[in-house]
Amino acid sequence: MSKLSPDSIQQDQMWMQFALAEAATAIYRTRPNPAVGCVIVKEHQIVGRGATAPVGGSHAEVFALKQAGDQAHGATAYVTLEPCAHYGRTPPCANGLVEAGITRVVIACSDPNPLVAGKGVQILENAGIEVVQGVCEAQAAAQNRGFLKAIATGMPYVRLKVASSLDGRTAMASGESKWITGTAARQDVQHWRAISGVVITGIETVLADDCQLNVRQLEGIADISTIVQPKRLVLDRQGRLPLTAKILAQAETVMVMGPFRQELADLGVLQFTVQPLTDLLQRLATQHQIYDVLVEAGATLSTAFLQARLVDEMISYVAPTFLGQTARAMFNAEFNRMAEQLRFKLIDVTQLGNDVRLRLIPSQETV
Amino acid sequence: MSKLSPDSIQQDQMWMQFALAEAATAIYRTRPNPAVGCVIVKEHQIVGRGATAPVGGSHAEVFALKQAGDQAHGATAYVTLEPCAHYGRTPPCANGLVEAGITRVVIACSDPNPLVAGKGVQILENAGIEVVQGVCEAQAAAQNRGFLKAIATGMPYVRLKVASSLDGRTAMASGESKWITGTAARQDVQHWRAISGVVITGIETVLADDCQLNVRQLEGIADISTIVQPKRLVLDRQGRLPLTAKILAQAETVMVMGPFRQELADLGVLQFTVQPLTDLLQRLATQHQIYDVLVEAGATLSTAFLQARLVDEMISYVAPTFLGQTARAMFNAEFNRMAEQLRFKLIDVTQLGNDVRLRLIPSQETV
Repeated sequence: MSKLSPDSIQQDQMWMQFALAEAATAIYRTRPNPAVGCVIVKEHQIVGRGATAPVGGSHAEVFALKQAGDQAHGATAYVTLEPCAHYGRTPPCANGLVEAGITRVVIACSDPNPLVAGKGVQILENAGIEVVQGVCEAQAAAQNRGFLKAIATGMPYVRLKVASSLDGRTAMASGESKWITGTAARQDVQHWRAISGVVITGIETVLADDCQLNVRQLEGIADISTIVQPKRLVLDRQGRLPLTAKILAQAETVMVMGPFRQELADLGVLQFTVQPLTDLLQRLATQHQIYDVLVEAGATLSTAFLQARLVDEMISYVAPTFLGQTARAMFNAEFNRMAEQLRFKLIDVTQLGNDVRLRLIPSQETV
Repeated sequence: MSKLSPDSIQQDQMWMQFALAEAATAIYRTRPNPAVGCVIVKEHQIVGRGATAPVGGSHAEVFALKQAGDQAHGATAYVTLEPCAHYGRTPPCANGLVEAGITRVVIACSDPNPLVAGKGVQILENAGIEVVQGVCEAQAAAQNRGFLKAIATGMPYVRLKVASSLDGRTAMASGESKWITGTAARQDVQHWRAISGVVITGIETVLADDCQLNVRQLEGIADISTIVQPKRLVLDRQGRLPLTAKILAQAETVMVMGPFRQELADLGVLQFTVQPLTDLLQRLATQHQIYDVLVEAGATLSTAFLQARLVDEMISYVAPTFLGQTARAMFNAEFNRMAEQLRFKLIDVTQLGNDVRLRLIPSQETV
């Protein structure tokens, strides 16, 4: 890795923003592949750009190099993830960059796979290409949170969505809950579903709401027909899911954890035996290439995920309203001392219409 | 009022920011007077500036005119509140502006007193001065929220401070609550106390915490010795306040609503007979010149203020932690239907350390 002046670091960060923007266009359509962006820069001009195509299509570098053509000779390539070094569904991109005559490659994230990390860089450096790593790494990592975690650890990245009133309630005692949060918050949920490989819920939620948990609109963000819909996984330990449930309208994209039922198998539903949540999550990542999990469930299941320390990030929508002390609690564990509290670190606060979205990660710290 | 080009409106808004900044320096020390700022501008230069002095001292215009001296001739004065037209503790400022030869006056807020509103402007216009009103009015009004409401309606502006966990709890069942929010949030509370004429609490809070509810630091904001401390009012319907309570260390600034007790009178405590909260608030504004009220109390009293629709603004600190369903609820009314919920409009969201502060005003709207 070469030494850089502050000026050239700023330049690299600037060009990498274009590569990140390319990757952002692809985040809903590349699953289970990571969304990667690439721009080729020659004499302070972008001469090629590309993003990962849907599964089976080309990687970002291929598109960018093709667009650059001969101008790739002596140019710098900016890529958001270390170019691959292996023959997978496509030939290795590192070789492509070498063959095109690229002389400098700037990388945001290294390959998360400990078995292949650095191999792409090795190919480049062996060919005499100057390689710079870690430019805008945090931003790039945020675009492929689940992929990076799963490849490195074998476990998916789990987001828990909660929506509550200011006094921590999710519904009236009767179950009435439409609506606590407004349209902007509800619309935002669609994004988190769209970047997820699966949406997990509990049978109680399905029985109460007859929900489908698919992505219905991404207005102004993406054409719904181009995205990879998340699978939906229902935790149904007693086998109560009705065959008339709306979620079974696209049964082949539904998974159920519960006792085996032939009628579900006939519909094409993938069934898991009842097992600990940790095992289930690991199985989703390692056997089903599901790297981003969104949990949208009631208090019991949400609390179970939280108490088992399985939540990587909580997406919490808070509506500025009071529902009163007989309304349903959002979190139903029982603690006696402050020391038992479940604390989070606040990583983002955003106002959405008249509601607030907090993004939180688990924290061991107290106040 | 003269017609203005977009350019001169922008100019006026820019100069008014300096007058608002002057007023801001005075907000902790002028009570019960409003904090007003004034700048005198001649040939695109500020030639005089001033802010309201503590009670008994001069108004903002007097300082600004004195500093401007002869340069006030033909200059423009920017004032955040309509110049007074009456002989109160000081001579009328409108006359002072006329005598100094000011030829244009730009005003943010009109006088809120319906009996005198417009009289200051009248004096100016009768003297041939061009008057522009309503420039940066919302910003100026926010600086003197209580004064403006009280003079107009006879009722103080009531802020309710609440601090809760994400699941809407304020303490463990045992009462343990130190600390839910972090230092930045707790420090922020000092500001709201410092702009208040009184902090109201309930006897249960005093018995539990032995709190003083005064302003102890405004680090980096103001010198604590220069501010007007808020009075403290304890709602104590059964006369339980112990004479050893720390809050009585400065008994002459303490008020108690409860049965008359000679021993409190001997300490200099001002006592109110038990009366409805509405009557008490009205009395504070009309007889004690207390225009800004901060309620810092437990769930029972906070809920009482909310349900009586006496809260103008809620200052809500939310800590990203879960305390569990047996912890104490922040709001203890009981509602059966969503239609009964108490809704707010979100007017500000600010991250404070690892906590979030929401500022909310009551709303009739549903989602």
